[in-house]
Amino acid sequence: MKIFAYGIREDEQPSLKKWEAAHPDIEVGFTEYTLTADSARLAEGSNGVVTLQTSPYTREALEVLHQLGIKYISIRNVGFDNFKFQDLNDLGFTLTNVPVYSPNAIAEHTVILMGRLLRRVPEFDQKMDNGDFTWAPTIGKEYREQTVGVVGTGHIGRVVIKILQGFGAKVVAYDVFHNPDIKKQGLYVDTLEELYKQSDIITLHVPLFDSNKYMINDEAISQMKDGVYIINCARGELIDTDALIKGLDSGKVGGAGLDVLDDENSVFGKVWSSIDNIPNEKIRNLAKRLNVIVTPHSAFYTETAIHNMITTAFDSNKALIEGEKPDNIVDTNK
Amino acid sequence: MKIFAYGIREDEQPSLKKWEAAHPDIEVGFTEYTLTADSARLAEGSNGVVTLQTSPYTREALEVLHQLGIKYISIRNVGFDNFKFQDLNDLGFTLTNVPVYSPNAIAEHTVILMGRLLRRVPEFDQKMDNGDFTWAPTIGKEYREQTVGVVGTGHIGRVVIKILQGFGAKVVAYDVFHNPDIKKQGLYVDTLEELYKQSDIITLHVPLFDSNKYMINDEAISQMKDGVYIINCARGELIDTDALIKGLDSGKVGGAGLDVLDDENSVFGKVWSSIDNIPNEKIRNLAKRLNVIVTPHSAFYTETAIHNMITTAFDSNKALIEGEKPDNIVDTNK
Repeated sequence: MKIFAYGIREDEQPSLKKWEAAHPDIEVGFTEYTLTADSARLAEGSNGVVTLQTSPYTREALEVLHQLGIKYISIRNVGFDNFKFQDLNDLGFTLTNVPVYSPNAIAEHTVILMGRLLRRVPEFDQKMDNGDFTWAPTIGKEYREQTVGVVGTGHIGRVVIKILQGFGAKVVAYDVFHNPDIKKQGLYVDTLEELYKQSDIITLHVPLFDSNKYMINDEAISQMKDGVYIINCARGELIDTDALIKGLDSGKVGGAGLDVLDDENSVFGKVWSSIDNIPNEKIRNLAKRLNVIVTPHSAFYTETAIHNMITTAFDSNKALIEGEKPDNIVDTNK
Repeated sequence: MKIFAYGIREDEQPSLKKWEAAHPDIEVGFTEYTLTADSARLAEGSNGVVTLQTSPYTREALEVLHQLGIKYISIRNVGFDNFKFQDLNDLGFTLTNVPVYSPNAIAEHTVILMGRLLRRVPEFDQKMDNGDFTWAPTIGKEYREQTVGVVGTGHIGRVVIKILQGFGAKVVAYDVFHNPDIKKQGLYVDTLEELYKQSDIITLHVPLFDSNKYMINDEAISQMKDGVYIINCARGELIDTDALIKGLDSGKVGGAGLDVLDDENSVFGKVWSSIDNIPNEKIRNLAKRLNVIVTPHSAFYTETAIHNMITTAFDSNKALIEGEKPDNIVDTNK
């Protein structure tokens, strides 16, 4: 059996080598290139393909894999919107994804962002860079004094809640679906408005739907406490950036921690000559504020997460090749 | 009854006003000046004095207070080594301190420092400052995968442990005195050497004694895991800075989070023209590294801590004036 992997980064290689060593009967090949009509030929002789990329998977590339007799594709991430299901079905491919790789990676990043805002770390960093080794008047706040509103109590939101409880913070939660454990703890409020009203910090952990696009807009912000901190490590389109900037300008919003942003693809993942030259005025506006922390969609990026992405993708591909039906097969008939 | 307070900073005034409002029968006066022979006269007509400063309290200043008929001094901090006990005894003063104001302030700062190291925040900050919005290869680690060695299980160490357990980290602890709860959880190891051997992160929460000065020296570091992170929010003299720098240079030490440093008074609390001009070569060396985070003895500095320092100091001074004997009277006969 042979599995060929595309788009392998240097930081993925230790986990890939580990998987290879644990499966001596399986041949593993890989390339740093993404899957294109050209690179597809590299998979010749393989039974399945493991891949990860943000650019679209072209029909031409899939046709080459098909001609090579390959039927199984396993992506190392969650999202499969860069595949056309029609292409996969026409060419008889079965696709798996990695639905959960490390809720903790994102949850921990979320809570660290809160701490950096509470302790005014960007201001302290600037003071130190300028040779100012005083603490006053840059006074901080403690987690344990905060009421944190967690919007969405799936895998990630629940880890956020557990961490915050270790700090002794008060947690209120909102979700359409009530998790039994969170319900038993009595953390749910009935409406988002109630969550906005009570929370010193609001953190988003919901998927993006048409119905919640720009849920954090002028009206929502007007219902929040003065000086509220807003954290988003979920999806950029949950926040109307104009409303957020307006809230920061007026002081209504005290700070924000943003791992994702509306239209982030125009900026993230690239190297610009300076922060002044990034081609999105709103992101530039946010990134330059001392009470806003922007991270480049890196919340997920831990050794554990990468290890799980590699391991689950290879395990799934092996299972498909062996004729099994793993739970994470993507339903391409929707 | 009147209480006069010295060295009141702007960030202390909200808490001071709150205490004043809660005690309408007591007159409260204050100044931003520290307590000197000159400023001591400002306390005329007062029954007691609340104070906080890092410079020595002079006999001349205390003599003026004595002449004004004042007998009670309440400091807003823990340390009283800038008083000469002989002076206090000669002039008949009773002194109180604030032994505990917020273990959480320091514990939370400690855990945030760990997170900033684990997620390589200084490197990400530098990338962003330079317009680099990529995440690879700046991969992070998760708290939950770490074994953290907590040296000292007093008020602060125990809060650190509770927070880390919320993250799902493994904790090992060392202390000469075994706390019953930590013992029951089975967290203690028998020797520091064992703690050094097991820990991915080591954090210090012990007071400074002659016996543990420079406890983190070449020998201790040689017993630690390769790539260990060392956190110190306790006392600077616990670490031999030369040994730490040597460990960082060799890569044996993977990073450090330092709120306190040996000889920090030569640098901290002051504004220098730039970080290159601070007058301590070792601190400069550490502060410029991307895997070292230096904060200027600011771990304690939260709104909650300041509130508790003001409130406890005023409460104690009031109690002394009313003839009570609060628990936090400093024994000046030692």
